[in-house]
Amino acid sequence: MPKGQPESVPDDGLTTRQRRNRPLVMVHTGDGKGKSTAAFGLALRGWNQGWNVAVFQFVKSAKWRLGEQTAFEALAGLHAEKGVGGPVEWHKMGSGWSWSRKAGTEDDHAADAVEGWAEIKRRIAAQEHDLYLLDEFTYPVNWGWIDVDDVVETLRGRPGHQHVVITGRRAHPAILEAADLVTEMTKVRHPMDAGQKGQRGIEW
Amino acid sequence: MPKGQPESVPDDGLTTRQRRNRPLVMVHTGDGKGKSTAAFGLALRGWNQGWNVAVFQFVKSAKWRLGEQTAFEALAGLHAEKGVGGPVEWHKMGSGWSWSRKAGTEDDHAADAVEGWAEIKRRIAAQEHDLYLLDEFTYPVNWGWIDVDDVVETLRGRPGHQHVVITGRRAHPAILEAADLVTEMTKVRHPMDAGQKGQRGIEW
Repeated sequence: MPKGQPESVPDDGLTTRQRRNRPLVMVHTGDGKGKSTAAFGLALRGWNQGWNVAVFQFVKSAKWRLGEQTAFEALAGLHAEKGVGGPVEWHKMGSGWSWSRKAGTEDDHAADAVEGWAEIKRRIAAQEHDLYLLDEFTYPVNWGWIDVDDVVETLRGRPGHQHVVITGRRAHPAILEAADLVTEMTKVRHPMDAGQKGQRGIEW
Repeated sequence: MPKGQPESVPDDGLTTRQRRNRPLVMVHTGDGKGKSTAAFGLALRGWNQGWNVAVFQFVKSAKWRLGEQTAFEALAGLHAEKGVGGPVEWHKMGSGWSWSRKAGTEDDHAADAVEGWAEIKRRIAAQEHDLYLLDEFTYPVNWGWIDVDDVVETLRGRPGHQHVVITGRRAHPAILEAADLVTEMTKVRHPMDAGQKGQRGIEW
């Protein structure tokens, strides 16, 4: 979408430049396809700007690997070798997180989710990244594993200039309220409705 | 989204494998953010599968450059040098297309759009790519520059195994009808509503 004009100008004491560069909380929710893919597309833009990007996938299976992970590892390699774009870290919950030295907690996804969020909070406080992509993060919040008030407080109070993208169905109302941008991906038609299973290159 | 089970199995004489690998027409429409970014995220998956990917951006300005273009050029370079992923071509309408030898038709975007579609048709007939990303393609169709019946006939009759993704607001009903997958990106909240202009890394 080309650069547009805002529909109204708020009385917030900020200059247009300050307002333009305000860091954002973005949420992609809804039952339709494209929540994660749009977040990864956004991460491509961040990479191109030289941003320090960190992806945290709140998925249960370590076996599940998206094509995007391979692509971003390649782009991170280009950054390391040639200095183009920015660095990208990719962390996946699976059974335990990559930074964790403990053995996989195969049977305690709740504990893994809590640990993941604690690490993200630590990094936000330390301003470690320019863009945090919390993929499928709505689920551990909705299941009560991660405290939604803590999430909202952390997002609202985050220091510096850090963007956050959250994906997943049924985003909690408090998170929607804290977001600057919310897009709902609505399913109009999906091949699975016509009996077609997911396929390589499309679903992963 | 993980591999799911289809809701019903159609009586179409295809095996599950044949049905799974059926090439798709996908449409990302609606007023919300994420139509193009999700399409580019999908193209990342295709790249990772080694697909031959071609992007056709139906934008009016050649100056408009998305971060994704730089990222995909880098990924295409990795394919050329190291054989990882697939090849990616990126064509932008602007004033004239990159394959065209004629001078930019600065003032005739309709003619440019028609030329772009003719080239895409030619490539589809020749089965040149695995994934065609027709970005912002709904507009020249809706403006009557490109004949929607011709588009639908070409999509329905395309040979071999070619996926097509179309993005843009207000997709024509005939195109929606021809699509296997339609996602509507609905704007729930956007920073521009709060007086914030688009920013680097987020909007481009």
